[in-house]
Amino acid sequence: MSALPVQALLFDIFGTVVDWREGIAREAQRCLAGRGIARDWHAFADRWRARYQPSMEAVRSGRRPFAKLDLLHRENLLATLEEFAIDGLSAAEIDQLTTAWHRLEPWPDVRDGMRRLRQRYLMAPVSNGNISLMVHLARHGGLVWDAILGAELARNYKPTPATYLAAADAFSLPPGACMMVAAHANDLLAARSCGLATAYVHRPTEYGPAAAASSLPHEHRFEVMATSFQELADQLGC
Amino acid sequence: MSALPVQALLFDIFGTVVDWREGIAREAQRCLAGRGIARDWHAFADRWRARYQPSMEAVRSGRRPFAKLDLLHRENLLATLEEFAIDGLSAAEIDQLTTAWHRLEPWPDVRDGMRRLRQRYLMAPVSNGNISLMVHLARHGGLVWDAILGAELARNYKPTPATYLAAADAFSLPPGACMMVAAHANDLLAARSCGLATAYVHRPTEYGPAAAASSLPHEHRFEVMATSFQELADQLGC
Repeated sequence: MSALPVQALLFDIFGTVVDWREGIAREAQRCLAGRGIARDWHAFADRWRARYQPSMEAVRSGRRPFAKLDLLHRENLLATLEEFAIDGLSAAEIDQLTTAWHRLEPWPDVRDGMRRLRQRYLMAPVSNGNISLMVHLARHGGLVWDAILGAELARNYKPTPATYLAAADAFSLPPGACMMVAAHANDLLAARSCGLATAYVHRPTEYGPAAAASSLPHEHRFEVMATSFQELADQLGC
Repeated sequence: MSALPVQALLFDIFGTVVDWREGIAREAQRCLAGRGIARDWHAFADRWRARYQPSMEAVRSGRRPFAKLDLLHRENLLATLEEFAIDGLSAAEIDQLTTAWHRLEPWPDVRDGMRRLRQRYLMAPVSNGNISLMVHLARHGGLVWDAILGAELARNYKPTPATYLAAADAFSLPPGACMMVAAHANDLLAARSCGLATAYVHRPTEYGPAAAASSLPHEHRFEVMATSFQELADQLGC
């Protein structure tokens, strides 16, 4: 554990707090099946998500000025629709499907765990999602945050150090008084390199049951290793 | 009323949501009377607050890079302590008194009014207070926000247009879909010049009972004129 007492928990969102794959598959079906379009919607979700890192890399590398994730999601959706040979959607339909990312469900343990964690810690998302996307997700899922931090505040995308450091600075805390909570080792390793404490939460079905990893990744040592937000709350003494 | 339906309410905080004068007088007494120091603590609060606008003007004019309000409050406190011939405080005592601004009470109508308004609108502070100050005030007063917007996000102080426009942009809304709520006409006039709708809430005792203005300022026409957050909720149909 960090030498400083942790005062704030910073949360990754997609995959850690919400189940993007099931949510996107459901929303794509809801938006498009009604038009008589039939596809493998889980594959559609996977291919849309596959364009996520490359689109952010254009910003991280400086090739492109900062753009909100909603815009990157829209551009990536257009490419995915083309890949799946879906055309003829109106701009309103494309906008509606783009905001599928605003209507994802939290994993079942999240609300209860967050309620307990909130008794002791300041809580904020540090996601690559833009502020309004995070606001809508919180309203949709009944989540209560102290502030919305993350990529839009830092004007850059994780895992660039600026993203984590901007979040600690917004809470007026040293990095060591913040703990990053994520289901992804690369996010936590980047946070640790900035001096943050780290908590890994295992989400084995993030990429679907076929891709499920059955055990915690023991190649990295994070301060907390948990399989749910309740277990995270238990381990943090909440 | 604006041509667009309002989707988000943006709140001024000091004077509009919280009673800074009584809170600062109480906190100064609590911090300093225990050391045997006796002063007129309401006058102390007034003099500390009198340094607020000049200190922000240094940033607005470009003479000084953006600095968080906590830092400006600390510098202004040192000057106020000198004016009141109070010396010998430790750095920890000065820090504790600086954060008196984090422990102010909401006006009595605020919590109930906000609970009603939140059913229909996105809600955020657009204050000159920094993010961590707003977070602590919200925890202290039991206020629930969707996001913390305002000066720190815009890296400039109200009433510069960038502050209002950055808040609307963070919610991914056009300015006309946002309504600024404040007890100060100059804040609302600046917001209106950026295209926001405006709601005036009358706080006649903000500067103390002796300075109380008995009636609403009728020289300006704001979309809503209210004397409490409940009346604001009534007028907005919540």
